[in-house]
Amino acid sequence: MKIGNTHTVGEIAAFLGCTVVGNPDQLVTGINEIHRVEPGDLVFVDHPKYYDKALNSAATTILIDAEVQCPEGKSLIVSQSPFDDYNRLTKKFHPYRPQMTMTGENCIIADSAHLSPNCFIGQDVEIGENVIIHPGAYIGDGTIIEENVIIGPNVVIGHYAFYYKRKPTGYDRMHSCGYVHIEKNVEIGALCTIDAGVSAITRIGEGTKIDNHVHIGHDTVIGKDCLLAAGVGLAGCVNVGERVTLWGQVGCASDITIGDQAIVLAQSGIAKSLEGGKTYFGSPCTEVKQAYREMAALRRLPGMLDQMK
Amino acid sequence: MKIGNTHTVGEIAAFLGCTVVGNPDQLVTGINEIHRVEPGDLVFVDHPKYYDKALNSAATTILIDAEVQCPEGKSLIVSQSPFDDYNRLTKKFHPYRPQMTMTGENCIIADSAHLSPNCFIGQDVEIGENVIIHPGAYIGDGTIIEENVIIGPNVVIGHYAFYYKRKPTGYDRMHSCGYVHIEKNVEIGALCTIDAGVSAITRIGEGTKIDNHVHIGHDTVIGKDCLLAAGVGLAGCVNVGERVTLWGQVGCASDITIGDQAIVLAQSGIAKSLEGGKTYFGSPCTEVKQAYREMAALRRLPGMLDQMK
Amino acid sequence: MKIGNTHTVGEIAAFLGCTVVGNPDQLVTGINEIHRVEPGDLVFVDHPKYYDKALNSAATTILIDAEVQCPEGKSLIVSQSPFDDYNRLTKKFHPYRPQMTMTGENCIIADSAHLSPNCFIGQDVEIGENVIIHPGAYIGDGTIIEENVIIGPNVVIGHYAFYYKRKPTGYDRMHSCGYVHIEKNVEIGALCTIDAGVSAITRIGEGTKIDNHVHIGHDTVIGKDCLLAAGVGLAGCVNVGERVTLWGQVGCASDITIGDQAIVLAQSGIAKSLEGGKTYFGSPCTEVKQAYREMAALRRLPGMLDQMK
Repeated sequence: MKIGNTHTVGEIAAFLGCTVVGNPDQLVTGINEIHRVEPGDLVFVDHPKYYDKALNSAATTILIDAEVQCPEGKSLIVSQSPFDDYNRLTKKFHPYRPQMTMTGENCIIADSAHLSPNCFIGQDVEIGENVIIHPGAYIGDGTIIEENVIIGPNVVIGHYAFYYKRKPTGYDRMHSCGYVHIEKNVEIGALCTIDAGVSAITRIGEGTKIDNHVHIGHDTVIGKDCLLAAGVGLAGCVNVGERVTLWGQVGCASDITIGDQAIVLAQSGIAKSLEGGKTYFGSPCTEVKQAYREMAALRRLPGMLDQMK
Repeated sequence: MKIGNTHTVGEIAAFLGCTVVGNPDQLVTGINEIHRVEPGDLVFVDHPKYYDKALNSAATTILIDAEVQCPEGKSLIVSQSPFDDYNRLTKKFHPYRPQMTMTGENCIIADSAHLSPNCFIGQDVEIGENVIIHPGAYIGDGTIIEENVIIGPNVVIGHYAFYYKRKPTGYDRMHSCGYVHIEKNVEIGALCTIDAGVSAITRIGEGTKIDNHVHIGHDTVIGKDCLLAAGVGLAGCVNVGERVTLWGQVGCASDITIGDQAIVLAQSGIAKSLEGGKTYFGSPCTEVKQAYREMAALRRLPGMLDQMK
Repeated sequence: MKIGNTHTVGEIAAFLGCTVVGNPDQLVTGINEIHRVEPGDLVFVDHPKYYDKALNSAATTILIDAEVQCPEGKSLIVSQSPFDDYNRLTKKFHPYRPQMTMTGENCIIADSAHLSPNCFIGQDVEIGENVIIHPGAYIGDGTIIEENVIIGPNVVIGHYAFYYKRKPTGYDRMHSCGYVHIEKNVEIGALCTIDAGVSAITRIGEGTKIDNHVHIGHDTVIGKDCLLAAGVGLAGCVNVGERVTLWGQVGCASDITIGDQAIVLAQSGIAKSLEGGKTYFGSPCTEVKQAYREMAALRRLPGMLDQMK
């Protein structure tokens, strides 16, 4: 999430009641979660295991629970509870705004777009030329939909991310302040969900076609001209290349990269990153040749064991 | 389903045109399916295989298709078709009530609850303080939603159970007369379904967080602070303990118990009850160590078979 | 799709700017995709691999990209781009008609049917006696729903097929002109999708019961008295017999036939046609005995490998 060019490290630390290590006059221009940080961003970290990753990330300001050495040109905001303070910040800059009407304020909707009856359109939504949104669809705050996109009936775009921190008192949800960007010529079937980015953008690349009952988690980025069959589920922070094909009921863990033109056969589970240009099968999946060799060998195994008796 | 303290075994047998074995003046205070019976309840049984289970259950009155020996302190109602007569009873005490308005009668909704536009609220629904119900959600008759619960867009809570009896003429549905109870601080993602209890309660424990596209069957009871990732499907009558984690696309058969703090990895299938405190994988799943050992062995098998040639 | 008895091969070729081989006065009475053609139909083919199948199909007119030998009694329409010209035809005879109202024109709805608030009913829809359509359901153009059918909340019936042709410029969608026919006594749970036929009919047989989150692809035909549990996904052009049972999260590839009374256990994947009367398990599935033998053998494998060291 970008927050403009007027907020300094010192001001934000004061709002949070935290101390600064480094330059308090440095600007904080955005707030992002570690997977999607850019220069100018504030990021949070609350476990020594991830200190180095956060300190060496693109982020300029690090909200951290220890007074560690501050890298050159960066600043630390030292907090007793970085997760909670991060949530306070995102809620301050992007509060939850309950909406009583079917179309929210501050939307830009092209004249040629067809919004069916019974659609819910959030606030600050942009909808391009010739877009069709079918009945019952939910389009959350800040969603950008480029031209010629089709959104199927009862689809849910831009609901908050499933991102929780376990605490002794139960799970605490990271407040989502990101949104969804759907590029032109994308078509999305019925009853799909595409979650908002936690603090960045969930993006569906130009020309990608998505079947029914597909789930796409927060901050996942899908390239151009991909094909996702019915029942596919992608967790958060997945990076899918271009012209990737995922067949029915494929599942993918978070923080995975899938290379261009990879094909993943039905019901496979993707547990680690996949090179492009290859075909995969299994749960967890391997290259299809390997998977088929194992299946053929397993088919022979019971007979062999009988013989060995 | 509780039916008050005014109905006797004799009256109910007369309504059904059935005979009584035992005390006709005994009260029937509830009607329940075998998995969820309590003292005072009437239960039905229509196969000798299950006679003992029904007769020895907590139920006080047994609707049965044979004049068997009646346990001390209980009564039998002898019917030629217990399933049909049971359905006649539940329909009498809890008839289907078509609703023409978006909010039903006799609801208790807290002032601080935010009901988005386009929500359907059934009859006799209770909604607590600070609850947020997102657009397009369906909240069925009798649902209880405690404080601070969030229900995602287009979610369906309290639709009837998928519970059918095969007959020569086709499938006949057990009429649902139960409901859903969602405890405080539960959060439910978009496009989830939580079915009504057949005759008892489908319950989601305090603080449990549920991702998108999750299905929870009738009479399933989930404990506190569980985490259910996207695409999880639980059949009916499942008992999930506390702090259980089910990752994406996990499926679970009916009548299973999952112990506290169990973790089930993505795409696993749960075919029998699981001890708590352990991690499981596979379809059907085993403890993860065992599953990984098998996967590693299988990976070596094709090469071994080649060598043996 | 049927288009009446007034259109000749010559007229259609002229509309498309194509040449005719054979009899230009022959009638074209329908337009169908290869899986569902009938006499009188026009079909398209654009790859030499499938020429014979198309030429020898029941179709009377073949829209083709080469001037091949024309079978006796048939006609060819020779096109440089059969897919595009086929789409032009289906769009001409069955254009997309955006709808601004919650109930479309030209519907026939029985007085005893209960349409809940918040349902979207397309154009040319027929709804029989005692049908119940729950809130938020979407019923697409041309859907036929026979008596006593129940459609669950937020279900989507008759959305367009997921059927794309890959071109150098991206994916191009085959325009759907078919519809869905739901026979009497069918019950469909919450949040299901049943796609329209591409050019023919997606059909759900009498008495079939469907749980929540089920996906049924275009042109799939399901027989009488089947049971589909939650999360089942069937691709397009699947033929399911009578009294078939598919348990939770089963997936099925396109163009598969499943015989009468087959049972497929939970999470199985159906990759080729299945004989009736048998039980199957696995992904891809085999007969359950074989699947269990393999599982048992695999369970012993790690120990055996340890011994062999």
